[in-house]
Amino acid sequence: MNDIKKYIEDNREKFLDELGELCRIPSRSGNTGALHEAAEWIARALSALGAEARIFEIPEGAPIVYGELGEGPRTLLVYNHYDVQPPEPLELWNTEPFSPKVLDGRFYCRGASDNKGNLMARLHAVRACVETMGSSPLKVKFLVEGEEETSSKHLAGFVRQHKDLLRADGCLWEGSWKDSQGRHILTCGLKGHCYVELRVRGARHDLHSSYAGIVPNPAWRLVWALGTLMDARSRITIRGWLKERRGLDEADERALKRVVFDAEGFRELHGFREFIRGMSEGELVREFLYAPTCTICGLRAGYTGDGPKTVLPSEAIAKLDFRLVPDMTPEKLLAYLRRHLDECGFKDVAIHPLGGIMPARTDCEDRIVGAALAAVREVCGREPILYPVAPWSGPLNDVCGVLNIPSVSFGVGHADSHDHAPNENIMVSDYGEGIQCMAAFMRIYARA
Amino acid sequence: MNDIKKYIEDNREKFLDELGELCRIPSRSGNTGALHEAAEWIARALSALGAEARIFEIPEGAPIVYGELGEGPRTLLVYNHYDVQPPEPLELWNTEPFSPKVLDGRFYCRGASDNKGNLMARLHAVRACVETMGSSPLKVKFLVEGEEETSSKHLAGFVRQHKDLLRADGCLWEGSWKDSQGRHILTCGLKGHCYVELRVRGARHDLHSSYAGIVPNPAWRLVWALGTLMDARSRITIRGWLKERRGLDEADERALKRVVFDAEGFRELHGFREFIRGMSEGELVREFLYAPTCTICGLRAGYTGDGPKTVLPSEAIAKLDFRLVPDMTPEKLLAYLRRHLDECGFKDVAIHPLGGIMPARTDCEDRIVGAALAAVREVCGREPILYPVAPWSGPLNDVCGVLNIPSVSFGVGHADSHDHAPNENIMVSDYGEGIQCMAAFMRIYARA
Repeated sequence: MNDIKKYIEDNREKFLDELGELCRIPSRSGNTGALHEAAEWIARALSALGAEARIFEIPEGAPIVYGELGEGPRTLLVYNHYDVQPPEPLELWNTEPFSPKVLDGRFYCRGASDNKGNLMARLHAVRACVETMGSSPLKVKFLVEGEEETSSKHLAGFVRQHKDLLRADGCLWEGSWKDSQGRHILTCGLKGHCYVELRVRGARHDLHSSYAGIVPNPAWRLVWALGTLMDARSRITIRGWLKERRGLDEADERALKRVVFDAEGFRELHGFREFIRGMSEGELVREFLYAPTCTICGLRAGYTGDGPKTVLPSEAIAKLDFRLVPDMTPEKLLAYLRRHLDECGFKDVAIHPLGGIMPARTDCEDRIVGAALAAVREVCGREPILYPVAPWSGPLNDVCGVLNIPSVSFGVGHADSHDHAPNENIMVSDYGEGIQCMAAFMRIYARA
Repeated sequence: MNDIKKYIEDNREKFLDELGELCRIPSRSGNTGALHEAAEWIARALSALGAEARIFEIPEGAPIVYGELGEGPRTLLVYNHYDVQPPEPLELWNTEPFSPKVLDGRFYCRGASDNKGNLMARLHAVRACVETMGSSPLKVKFLVEGEEETSSKHLAGFVRQHKDLLRADGCLWEGSWKDSQGRHILTCGLKGHCYVELRVRGARHDLHSSYAGIVPNPAWRLVWALGTLMDARSRITIRGWLKERRGLDEADERALKRVVFDAEGFRELHGFREFIRGMSEGELVREFLYAPTCTICGLRAGYTGDGPKTVLPSEAIAKLDFRLVPDMTPEKLLAYLRRHLDECGFKDVAIHPLGGIMPARTDCEDRIVGAALAAVREVCGREPILYPVAPWSGPLNDVCGVLNIPSVSFGVGHADSHDHAPNENIMVSDYGEGIQCMAAFMRIYARA
């Protein structure tokens, strides 16, 4: 064990350089060339570990990388992804988004936390095992996809088609974060989501705004339509939608009570004045982990440059992200939303679906969860936090649902990692610690 | 008279080339160099006519060009401007915005209609008089400013300071359009306007949208705040604001009855489905000319590129244009808006004023209006339409209010001129006709 620890410490610089190599590949969704380049880079890295690595080409999708190595009493499936969110708005980055840079103990790059940093920490932990003990303590199967940020369209089909290949006792999911007080957050289930663009058209072209008294303005139509979806207390008001939500059972309520959330630290870190509805800490956790959401991720209409321009826009667009909890599904959301808008008089508001993903719950009492808690405790000397369900989303149902295996997640991010936002980063020290946690987890889970 | 007509016809190409020269100067608001270049170009053109031309430098503003020529029983003040709206969005232009191009009988360029085409038609008419009759039939004073598109901040002060210089019997205002059936629209008064940017801040930076259940979203705050300003029937709901509006008097009602508006032609030309509230033609004219408006000219928040991005925006912005009728003023609007937002619970919505202008009425029975109607009738052989007040805005109060003179406007635009929008254009044939109208107007008004 001490050998491994020393090996990881001795190789920290090198590991970080290798992470930098992968982060340099601008594998944002849509960049086909870079997505392939990243997939090949990862397959080579897996082969270098001694794994049998394969690249599965996905027609009209990004390749899936699979790699398998080691033997042992247990088989662990590791899920990660190599695609990243677009880096825009570029002007808010303090560094180049695809040029990794270490500043003040942080490693900055798009993908540093979500999700290349988590993937590489796991690879480096396996390498540490192989180099110091000759082999991995268990069989590890890496499943690395490139469509996570665009709703993993082809993953469920792939998993169904390769059930035997992917068979495992449990799954180490994508990754996770520390909270604002530095406590590791471990997660089991995930929320689902459904992303749509609402579009409204007015005149054929932009008009002078002096016509505003008589010509319909799509920006107003959009504002009024949006106003029917959520009230000013941030309560979703889509007719009937909340009835789809499964209530919390006793196990949920028990798990919820154990969750700690540093509300004040979180608020200060992100610099906003107060939480929605001035919620108490208990209410916040319940809302954060168990409530569906309806988020305006983007608004665009007419003139958005500096200064005034007196124009009547011809088009208005809103990008909306809905987080889903059991038993909500993307398909149901689309149907409720269409019916609601129609009933409210907004048949002219078009809904363009941009991807959806099912919510998923996994068993929080499984030995894989216990092994993860023990590993993080051992490495950090501090009690981690367990989210029975995490508020973010991922294709957990497509993997662990299809394979019917339990899941847990821990990783190298921190509360200020800026996932999906400018200046994404991880702490250099967290990266080494994350590798240690993974190595300890492999050892403990192998015997659990 | 026939000499003038022939002269104008013979010189049409040359006149259009000269208009092109001025249009090539990208004198958008904010482009200091180009604004000065345009001012100097116009001063040179006035001098070439034999006018005494002067450029008045305006500290922290765009220069004002003044030129005076001719003698006669009347003095006519001509108001125009050389600044233009930003050409964005560039991708919707079929030509380069500052490279004049004639296509299918139309002259395309930013400024073609608003307002360089109108200015140049007037200059060319004066030239036609000078070249064919030896002089202008009346004294003409050109007042050409460069801040019209940004609320003419320095104009009222300039006019007050130069009352003697600018003294005149009446004013030929900025310009105007033909309607969708090709009838000239003459205008007297103008609406005022007030342009503001509403800004809402959330967290210090964009966050992952999984936090949407607990962290306030400025895009939602903006949508809810906007929703309190106007209802889904397009009725302004800013508390108390509409009470500021002066009712129509009997003269207004009489003038209103004479206005014709080709609603169906207008609707088809601009390709929208139906007018607001399905108004009848009579209601449309009343709303168009006499009602205040509240227009969303632009919306911007979060991610606005292609595809999905699951982000919780840190800022949201709306650009709003309010058209004002007597006795509304920009100052009053700002006060009402602030109070309304505060009372509705939106103290967090910041108001950034981006310029305002007073509404103005002028005497529709003055001889200058009769002369304009007669001139257009004579040249076009068709009855023009007289708008007692036009729905657009301009610093009419700053000029004709300060000088206490009547005003009328006619010009070279048409119903599909795309003022303030991509593909701004005028008809080549309208340009020649506009010069003829101006020449006829000068002759008739000189003797009226």
